[in-house]
Amino acid sequence: MEKLTIVKVGGKIVEEHQSLKQLLSDFSKIKGYKVLVHGGGRSATSMALRLGIESKMINGRRITDKEMLDVVIMVYGGLVNKQIVAGLQTIGVNGLGLTGADLNYMRSDKRPVTDVDYGFVGDVKEVNAEILVDLILKGVVPVLAPLTHDSSGNLLNTNADTIACEAAKALAMYFDVTLMYCFEKKGVLLDENDDESVISILTPELFTEYVSSGIIQGGMIPKLENSFDALNKGVNNVVITRADQMHTDNGTKVFSR
Amino acid sequence: MEKLTIVKVGGKIVEEHQSLKQLLSDFSKIKGYKVLVHGGGRSATSMALRLGIESKMINGRRITDKEMLDVVIMVYGGLVNKQIVAGLQTIGVNGLGLTGADLNYMRSDKRPVTDVDYGFVGDVKEVNAEILVDLILKGVVPVLAPLTHDSSGNLLNTNADTIACEAAKALAMYFDVTLMYCFEKKGVLLDENDDESVISILTPELFTEYVSSGIIQGGMIPKLENSFDALNKGVNNVVITRADQMHTDNGTKVFSR
Repeated sequence: MEKLTIVKVGGKIVEEHQSLKQLLSDFSKIKGYKVLVHGGGRSATSMALRLGIESKMINGRRITDKEMLDVVIMVYGGLVNKQIVAGLQTIGVNGLGLTGADLNYMRSDKRPVTDVDYGFVGDVKEVNAEILVDLILKGVVPVLAPLTHDSSGNLLNTNADTIACEAAKALAMYFDVTLMYCFEKKGVLLDENDDESVISILTPELFTEYVSSGIIQGGMIPKLENSFDALNKGVNNVVITRADQMHTDNGTKVFSR
Repeated sequence: MEKLTIVKVGGKIVEEHQSLKQLLSDFSKIKGYKVLVHGGGRSATSMALRLGIESKMINGRRITDKEMLDVVIMVYGGLVNKQIVAGLQTIGVNGLGLTGADLNYMRSDKRPVTDVDYGFVGDVKEVNAEILVDLILKGVVPVLAPLTHDSSGNLLNTNADTIACEAAKALAMYFDVTLMYCFEKKGVLLDENDDESVISILTPELFTEYVSSGIIQGGMIPKLENSFDALNKGVNNVVITRADQMHTDNGTKVFSR
């Protein structure tokens, strides 16, 4: 099977002109077929603030009421997504910005209300990869915004790590997929105060050990759980790295056993 | 050749939940392949106002400085476009929202500054229809936002009538194209105070006559100039009608001679 790399980049790097430019240049150097998944939380928070809408977060996840939904549709689906696509076109990468509603490629259900009402947040239910595969084979690079839809006309805010993981699993039927999560560190660190203490290989056993000893914590835990899930569902490689290393071999490689 | 209808709808109808729902239902009844082009000016003006940005118009065209550009990218490319796409998916129409940067399908040049500086406004230079044709033949319905790009990383605000006209001309090489401009009247009126006085057939001679007598004026003049241009460049039919009539035979039919 042909190689496909799905790169997820967080908010900050795509939200500033200079870092975005560098990111897109690094991204274009990755060989083989590519998909880019982006966040945009900082821009959403700052746009909400300008509109007098308060951002509420619980467990690092945004509470998305109707007003905030409009903000994230505008910012994720519009401003951030389209600026990435326009930037890719300048370097000869044929980007196509997508929400889950576009081509009906990713459908979700509104998250049920338990002790927390997350509002218009979607849990992914179905990925229609076929039409993406056609486009990718034609040289198109899908640029995925963190938005899905429920088939009843609602767009739903969906975590970008989850979008990347679900897309990777669905595309693994057609490609030799590498899923790459980029964040601000060079990889998963043994010592959070030492940027060079990158754990080069991470297995489920090491993960369990590092979680109980407190070395791995916070947002890294769901990211790694997603990674193991992806590996168990056909994704070949998962790498956690810093954006400026995406076209190199550095970072933390995650193994399913 | 197979039939393709390109429907352009103005701002108001796509910006209100009830009228949008009706519009999408009417649109879905059009037989054959379809493309939808939308505006969104009212939403852009109201979002700009909420952000403390003043909307300046000259000759009915929006002056688009950097701040206003961000607003139209968010509103046209995000909010309005994605809500249309999500709405189409609920009725089984496989929408795909696009700006000109997506798939590099429509490239423009920033309008030169003459006596007026329109700012980040694009004049269309090139349409890459091939990849759209592939998608349309697969049953995808492109939903075109009034934004193009300049291949240097800038999105540019572009009149939706122009987008529809340029897309129609480019697609006329592959399909038997009908270009349909929907606005708030049943067609071009002989008497602006009589909604039933629809001119059923309009030729260049009648157009010249009606313009000199003042019957046709304002924004209808460029719309009809676009129409004649489209007909001269291979588009088979141009119709000017009201959105709720789009799936009927009513409205003003424009002929090139």
